[in-house]
Order: sequence, then structure tokens, then C-alpha cells
Amino acid sequence: HSRKALASELAATAVGEVLARFLRAACMFCCWSVSEPPLAPGRWRRRSLTSGPRLVYRPEPLDLHLGMFLPTLLNQATPEQMDRFFTPAWNLQIIGTYAQTEMGHGTHLRGLETTATFDPATQEFVLNSPTISSIKWWPGGLGKTSNHAIVLAQLHTQGNCHGLHAFIVPIRDMDTHVPLPGIVVGDIGPKFGFSEVDNGFLKLENVRIPLDNMLMKYAKVEPDGTYVKPPSAKLTYGTMVFIRSMIVGQSALALAKSCTIAIRYSAVRHQSELKPGEPEPQILNFQTQQHKLFPVLATAYAFTFVGQYMKQTYNRISGDIHAGDYSGLPELHALSAGLKAFTTWAANGAIEVCRMSCGGHGYSRSSALPDIYVEFTPTCTYEGENTVMMLQTARYLLKSYSQARGGQQLQGSVSYLSRLQPQPVSAGVPPLNIQDLASLVQVYQLRAANLVELAATSIQQELQLRRSQEDAWNSSAIDLVRASDAHCHYVVVKLFADKLRQVEDPAVTSVLSTLALLYSLHGIASNSGDFLKAGLLSVPQALQVSAHIKELLIQLRPNAVALVDAFDLNDKRLNSVLGRYDGNVYEHLFEWARHSPLNASEVHESFHKYLKPLRSKL
Amino acid sequence: HSRKALASELAATAVGEVLARFLRAACMFCCWSVSEPPLAPGRWRRRSLTSGPRLVYRPEPLDLHLGMFLPTLLNQATPEQMDRFFTPAWNLQIIGTYAQTEMGHGTHLRGLETTATFDPATQEFVLNSPTISSIKWWPGGLGKTSNHAIVLAQLHTQGNCHGLHAFIVPIRDMDTHVPLPGIVVGDIGPKFGFSEVDNGFLKLENVRIPLDNMLMKYAKVEPDGTYVKPPSAKLTYGTMVFIRSMIVGQSALALAKSCTIAIRYSAVRHQSELKPGEPEPQILNFQTQQHKLFPVLATAYAFTFVGQYMKQTYNRISGDIHAGDYSGLPELHALSAGLKAFTTWAANGAIEVCRMSCGGHGYSRSSALPDIYVEFTPTCTYEGENTVMMLQTARYLLKSYSQARGGQQLQGSVSYLSRLQPQPVSAGVPPLNIQDLASLVQVYQLRAANLVELAATSIQQELQLRRSQEDAWNSSAIDLVRASDAHCHYVVVKLFADKLRQVEDPAVTSVLSTLALLYSLHGIASNSGDFLKAGLLSVPQALQVSAHIKELLIQLRPNAVALVDAFDLNDKRLNSVLGRYDGNVYEHLFEWARHSPLNASEVHESFHKYLKPLRSKL
Repeated sequence: HSRKALASELAATAVGEVLARFLRAACMFCCWSVSEPPLAPGRWRRRSLTSGPRLVYRPEPLDLHLGMFLPTLLNQATPEQMDRFFTPAWNLQIIGTYAQTEMGHGTHLRGLETTATFDPATQEFVLNSPTISSIKWWPGGLGKTSNHAIVLAQLHTQGNCHGLHAFIVPIRDMDTHVPLPGIVVGDIGPKFGFSEVDNGFLKLENVRIPLDNMLMKYAKVEPDGTYVKPPSAKLTYGTMVFIRSMIVGQSALALAKSCTIAIRYSAVRHQSELKPGEPEPQILNFQTQQHKLFPVLATAYAFTFVGQYMKQTYNRISGDIHAGDYSGLPELHALSAGLKAFTTWAANGAIEVCRMSCGGHGYSRSSALPDIYVEFTPTCTYEGENTVMMLQTARYLLKSYSQARGGQQLQGSVSYLSRLQPQPVSAGVPPLNIQDLASLVQVYQLRAANLVELAATSIQQELQLRRSQEDAWNSSAIDLVRASDAHCHYVVVKLFADKLRQVEDPAVTSVLSTLALLYSLHGIASNSGDFLKAGLLSVPQALQVSAHIKELLIQLRPNAVALVDAFDLNDKRLNSVLGRYDGNVYEHLFEWARHSPLNASEVHESFHKYLKPLRSKL
Repeated sequence: HSRKALASELAATAVGEVLARFLRAACMFCCWSVSEPPLAPGRWRRRSLTSGPRLVYRPEPLDLHLGMFLPTLLNQATPEQMDRFFTPAWNLQIIGTYAQTEMGHGTHLRGLETTATFDPATQEFVLNSPTISSIKWWPGGLGKTSNHAIVLAQLHTQGNCHGLHAFIVPIRDMDTHVPLPGIVVGDIGPKFGFSEVDNGFLKLENVRIPLDNMLMKYAKVEPDGTYVKPPSAKLTYGTMVFIRSMIVGQSALALAKSCTIAIRYSAVRHQSELKPGEPEPQILNFQTQQHKLFPVLATAYAFTFVGQYMKQTYNRISGDIHAGDYSGLPELHALSAGLKAFTTWAANGAIEVCRMSCGGHGYSRSSALPDIYVEFTPTCTYEGENTVMMLQTARYLLKSYSQARGGQQLQGSVSYLSRLQPQPVSAGVPPLNIQDLASLVQVYQLRAANLVELAATSIQQELQLRRSQEDAWNSSAIDLVRASDAHCHYVVVKLFADKLRQVEDPAVTSVLSTLALLYSLHGIASNSGDFLKAGLLSVPQALQVSAHIKELLIQLRPNAVALVDAFDLNDKRLNSVLGRYDGNVYEHLFEWARHSPLNASEVHESFHKYLKPLRSKL
């Protein structure tokens, strides 16, 4: 049970080493690199204002100050507001949070109820939480830590409502930290995870703030109450799209961590018997264990490349937008929404597969897997609930489909919808070669086209029954989500294949090809009904897919530990006894247990406090 | 947002009321009844020794004392041992636990390393943990609460090892509670859930116990060291099979709780818009939300009936065994192993679907869903890891298949394997009627037969490649698990259909039929590849299945709240703000939050302790 045992796992070729270099060179997210900047974590975090919350280490009460409050000022404050708020915030005199979500309103922003009504007499906004459901709910650091909040509220002036705008609201005294008049603020109570963070509530009762506390870089209210619109409504997309793109990388990181832990532990753990009388084998030698973990490993690689692509695409389109070209925004918006949902759902399930593949010890917090799960799972909900995200992507797909039907040439990820028109998607398909990645990319593309077409047909049928456009949409929502899912799946397979073409080292090409094939074939096996129904796969081919997956598991087995080592997540970062680099699991499990808080005394106080009195009563 | 709103959800027919009576009358597990015995929980628990651990309320340190230590004495102690141990244990002088699992060994019992060596000179057993991996690990209440443990150890006497036997080992002083000499005992540290329980470790260093501390109702060691075998090895199956059967009922209960919470909340929560300008609809009106929750609801009903069946079957076969007839045991063993895995995996995933369907609030512990999950998810691992359980069932299926091929008439749940021989399973199948439950039962049966056949073929092919029997088994493990899964799925669908025939009230029949159809068709849609590949479903039928599922969601919508009300889980039992019977969610969410421990003071100590000093350093 030592690194020696794990080292014997490493393939003769130093694939792990080369892969690690490859991944590093490929410009990962700043948070994901073995050569982190040589700064104390605190200082480093304060420097990486744009990296969004929760990318590094554990959640903290200052996450929203650093990840949302300061960046929002940077993006939306006037120069005067930067002077007044940014510098004190940088020095932690002002501690801020970002208060958007309300108790009764989340993803659907137009439903938010908090009001900010301009009073020209005093040149102030009056902020109110008119109902219980309008109480701000969930913002991190709001409960106990922050003395300011950027509050999203419906702006009312001159008798009109102009929709959501952002206001800087002082909530606690800067010196005493006591809540200010009209402010009811506190912690929302224990959660699944995030125990370190005081997610809070905020009820506003006629709270007055000066006119120039509205963030006015774009929209403005003039002293007489005249409202001036922002130059483009699309600018507000920016942060949202950025964070969704970043979340794709977080999915990859969560998967990389989880499968590093589970695969290393599965090489250390011996259990059951394959042959009577022989020693218990490593559990990684069981086909069922490989079938749980290797597809997760392949997905971790796939999402890593998708995360890189999203970052590059975001930067490219961001540059275009700054140059006044908004044409790439709808595609980026649709892609980031869909891939955020697709990757977080997949990762969410896979983390738990990894945890349960570690048997009982996966349930111990010493494995780190429970913490990875509770810290990751909110990504399925925040920054846009996943089903809503899938439906947003579906809206883009359906629009593109209808444009393609109208003869338009489409660009970007949906271009396949043009190429396939007007003949039905399954017509004239070249025969599938299940060992050829290009052929698999095509079959995923055809499946996506088929499911987009099915969703469009469903809407058409509903409309023919004289349903309204909206009812037809809702009655086809299952199909629409499925179409988005298939589109995202195609994008992931395609990006994995594209990435392979950039690899030069033949050993790396070989092992990454195996992973890409496994990712693609596992997806086909898990959704074989779609492919069979669309005529993209024959029954004998479906059986070949299953057989070939077994072959790929055997091929990957010798490289499995090298492939997780290549993620280069050091022990401090992983914080997992089961996933230790040296493989010395059992001794450290015992060591870890001895530090359990309950072991501080040999005889726990509960014996005197409860057990003895209970006994005497019997 | 009150019960009035929820009441408007109840269907015109009092289906909920009638269903509740039906479920109550159907003899649920003792823990699942609105009319619990009028005893204080503590006393009631002590009375239900045979109901197993963790069926009621929250986990507790005494769970294993009540659920394992006392029952094991009842089953395996001699009359003399009953006098010496049972009465003091009943009075909590002795507090015991059941120490089987070791740090390095779980499901594979033969791998356990702890030794008990008989020393005839002193008439004592000497117990040892020879390695780190042999340290007892996980038993509830072992860390700090228990002063005795039933220790499972390899019995050595007269130079021979006779396998695992149970020994009563005092571990702490009965008065002072200090660990005894040679005993290293403590808590194993924080876990995903079960914070209330001191799961513990136990290292034995030459611990001596008297000869008559071995549980000797069946196997015996005589004073000279002669070993006397138990009359039947099969007797040790009993408890395991019992607990696995009970876990099926726990799956049903966890699902019933989760979908009660999620469905009530989805009727209270308004979000997004279906039509511009109209008020935000109840989220339960979104097709995607129905598609998440109604199949879970159907599964909760299905597993309830399977749980009832397992309880009855256990009692019947248990009676046979006491009468000396062991013929039903292999079938019961296979069924309980497979259904334990099938239902816990399904429930595990579905609890999280319910939690995430509640948006952000599902992540709050006020929803109760995080606690339901962390308390339920260990069932996938304990009492036999699920994949291992599926493979045990597969062994029975393959044996039965080969018997059927040999012309034997099979009995019980596998009898279909005889009827279908010797022609291939898909030959001569009557056409599928997707609206007819009997036809669906048959198609599930045929799918199971097909997948058992595929697994058998895979093993055959491996053997032809001159692989050993064991390697052939391992190389077919994916197929074997899939075959077991399909067999269990068939059993569940069949039991649901059987149950329907017992219903007399036509309104109940109608709504339960809708649920049974939804359960069956949803399973076909989710596994459509299997049915298509086996030729049991045509492509047009597959499309009809999807369309009919949408119809069933619409049919169930008006009855959804009534159907969860019928589970009759009162508010105290549910302990969920989101799932309140009165639907008054938001006010109570605010009320609940105000009691958060962090809100005990307006200015939290962290301000003085950390934030102010941090500020002054900048």
C-alpha cells in the first residue's frame, strides 16, 4: 500500500508525465495549474478578481465580495463611484455582496419584486421588500459578513417601472457592524454544504440611498427623475455568460478530482475474489469498477477541453463585443447556457458514482468526495437553473432550424442544421465506423439534428391542434431539453476530436484517442435508443459498441493511474486520504480518525450527561 | 400560499383519502403508518427490536444496540448467554454494537482478518487485529457509546481456522466507561451524514475473553478446543436477507418523503412565465417539472408494493425455514439482493432529482431533502455493496437459465426463463400494446430473458477463447449486472400489476393504473435501446411511448397533490418547510432562518475576531 504499488500501475511509457505537460501547456483555467503563483492564498485570491467565486479551495464568506461585488463595480460603476466605493472595498472597509435572488424568485429575473423608487424631492431612491417572497435570499456573505450589498431592484421613476437595475445599499454600520435602520438582515440557516459561508437574507423597509448610489455607467436616472436607457440591453449578458463559461471548467475540475481519488483508491484497495484461493485483487481489476470509473475519466478529459474552448471563445467574442460587434453573442449565450447545464449535470452524477465506487470509505469526509459533491452540486441550480438553461439553448436551436429550413446558411456550432436540409436527417448517411472518431462525431451530429427535428415536429403538431405558441412550447419541453442535450453532447465529442488533432506526441495521441473513443461510445451505449430510432445505428452495431467498450476498458487499465496523475492535482489540493499520491491510504485513515473531534477525550461527555442518567431511570 | 391553494389541487374525487386508507390497510412496514403506537419514541423504538436500524426518525448512537446487538443475541446466544448478556443489555448496563466491517474489508466477508484463537490452557479466546487493515471500522455507536461489541473474527482452534464466528467482547469498563486493556477504540471522524452517530474503530491487541463469550447457539468450541460445526451454514443468511428485504421498504419511504416535499412545493412555487404578461405559473405546470417528479411518484408507489411483497415473502420463507424447508432460500436470497440494489440505486438518484427540482431552496436543510439523501445513500453500500448484490442475483439467474436450457421447470420469479426455452426469446412475441399493463409486464419479462441470454452468451464466448470460468465471469460482469437490473425491473412492474388486481375502488384503480403505466413506460423510454435491440419494440412504438408518457403526465397533474397526501406523512415526520401540509412555505422559511445559530447575535463574533484585525492589516 505505498506509492510503489501505485507506481507499478504506471505504464512503461511515461504517458502520465507527457500528458501532464500537455495539459499544463494547453492554458488551463488559472485555478488549475500545478504552478500556482507564489503568493499566499489570501493575496492570490484578492488578485484574481475576475476568476469568479469558488474556483479555488473551500468556499469563504468573502467569495461574493471578491467574485461579484468588486467585479460588478469594475463593470458598472461610474468613475466617481469607483472612487467612492472601489478603493474602500479593495481595503475591506466596505465589504460587499451581490443581492439578486429573492425568496420567491430565482432564475426568472423579471419576476423579482424588490423596488427602488426615485424621490426627486430628496434626490434619493427608496428601497422596499414589498412581500415576504421578495426578501433577498441566498447571497453569500450577506448574513453576517457584509456591510454593503449591490441590490438588484425594479427601478420606478416618474410613475414608470424600468426593470431591474443595480443599487449600492449600505446595510451595516461601517464601524460597529450593527444593521442600519430599515435593514432586516441575517443568516438563512444550515445547508447541504457551504457551512463556512453566511448565505443571508435582506428585507428592506423604506431604506433611502442617494441618487448616485445607482450604478450608472450605462443606464442613468437624472436629478429630475428622467430615465436614460443603456446603449445596449445585451451588455447585461456579459457577466452571466462569463460565469456560465467558467462553470464548464469547474465541472472538469470536480470530475478530475473525483476520479483521481476513486481511481487511485481502486488501485490500492483489494477486495473480493476473482479466483478461489488467490489473493483479493485490486478492485480496479473488476470490469464493473472500470465501467464505472473509466467513462468518468474520459469525461473529465472531455470537459477539460470543452472548458478551454469556452474560455477561448468567451475571450474572442468578448473582444468582438468591445469592438462593437455583437453578432457572436447569441451563439455564445446558447452554447454557455447549454454546456453549463450539460457538464454540471454529468459531473454531478459522476461525482457520486466515484464516491460510491469507494465503498463505505467514500462516505467518510476523509475521502473528500462528500465535500466535492456538496460544493459542486449547486452549480446545477445557480447562474441559471439547468432545465431553464437547456430550454434557452433549445430556443436558439429551433430558431436556427427554422432559418436553415428557410434556406439560410448557418454559422458556428449549429451549422450542421443547414447542411442537412432539406432532406430528412437520416437520409444518405455514410456507414458508421465505431472505431473512427470522425464517424462518431458525425453520428452525434445526426442524432442532434434528428432530435431538433423531432422537437420542431412536436411543436408543429401542437400548433395544428390550435394550441397557442406558448402551450405548444411547454407541451414539447421534454423533447426540447432532449434536443439541447444531444446538441451539447455533439459539441463535446466534436471538441474532443478537434483537440486530438493538436496533439503531437504519438503516445499522447494514442491514449487520448482511446479516451475519446470511450467517451463517444459510452454516450452511444447510454443513449442507444436515440441512435437506433434515428436509423443511425443498426442492432449488430449496437452490440459491437458494447463489445468495443469492454476492449477500451482493458486498453485503459494499465494507464489509468498515469491518466489521473496527469491532472497534477497535488495532495493539498485534493485533501483526500483515499486519493493520496503515495497510496498510503490505511495508515493515514487511522491517523485522520484519531484526530476526530469526538476523540479529544477517551470518555465522551455524553456518557456522563446522557447514558448514565438514562440507565438509572430504567 | 396556504393549504387552500394546495386544497384546490386536490381532485374532485377524494382519491387521496381513499388511497391513504388503501395504503394503510395494506399492512405497511410498522414504521410507516399514521397511527403509530401511542408510546414515547424512545420506548417505542426499544419495543421494535426486529425492525432494524434507522427505519424511524433520525440516526442515533443506540441504533446498533437496538437493531443489531440485541437481535443477534436473540438469534445466536445460548440460554446461559441470554441470562448473562440480554437482560443487562435490555437495561442499558451493557451497551453493545456489531463489529463486522474492517478498514480493509467490507462486503467480502471471507476477507476479514480479525482473529480469535482459542487457548485451552486458560479456556480463553485471544482476539487480535493483526494488521492496520484489520481494524474494525464503521460500526455505529462503537466509537464512544458502547461498552461491548459483538466482534466477527476468524476462529482458530487446534491449529485450524474455522472461518467467521461471533464473539462478545467487553471494550469499556461498565462503570467508568474507560477502554479496557488491549482495546484501542474511538470515533472514525466526520462523514457525509450521520453526524449524530459515533461510527467507530476498534483495534484488538491480545484481548482475552472467556470461552463462553463465543455465541454458541449453533457452532461450538468445546473446552478441549474441539470445533463443532453449526447444523446448517444457511442459517447465517437469515439476518442479512431480512435487512435487505427491509431496505426495499426504506427505498419506498425515502421516495415517498422526497416526492411529497417536491410535489407540494412545486404546487406552491410560482416561477417563470408560460405566457407573456400573465402571472407566473405554478412550477408543477411545466412539462419538464412533471417529467422529473411524476415518474418518481410512480416509483414511490411501485416500491411501496414491492416492499410489502418482500416483507410477506420473507415471513413466508422464514416460516418454511423454521419448519426445516430451505427450498425457498436461494430465490429469496437472489431477490432480496437484487431488489435491494435496484431500489436503492433508483431511490438514491430520485431523491436528488426531487431536491434539485426545488431550485435553491432544495439545497437548504429546511427542505429536509439534504438530510434524506445523506441518511439514505449509505443503503447503496451497506448490507452488501450494490454491484456485488447485482452480481449475486446474476449468479442465480445464470444458474436458472442453464437449468431451463437443461429442460427443468423453474419456479418463482425466474419461471419465465423456462417458458421461453428453447426458442430465442424474441421469437413469437405477441404485439405490444403500450396502454395495456399485462402486455408491458410481458415485454419487461422478454427484455430480462434477452439480457440473461446475452450475458450467458458473453460468458460462453469468453470460455471459447480458453479463458477461465472466473475470467469469463469478470469479462461479462457489465452484461451480468444489466441482466439483473432488467430482471428486477420486470419483478417491480409485475408486482405493481399484481397489486392493481387487489384494488376494489374504481377511482383508486384508475389512478393507480395511470401510475403503473407511467412507471412502466418511463422505464421503457429510459432503456429504449434494450427493447429496440431485442426486437420487442418498433421505432413507431418507441415514439408512441414518448407521446403517451406526455399524456399520462397531463392525466396525473390534477391528482398529484392528492397522491402524495395519500402517503400520509405528517409534518413532524417530514420535518420539511418546503413540504408543509398547509403549503405556507415562505413565511415558515423566514421563521426557520431566524432561528439559525448564526443569528443568535446581531453582530457575529467573527467581525471582531477576524474582519476588524484583517482590515487593520491592510
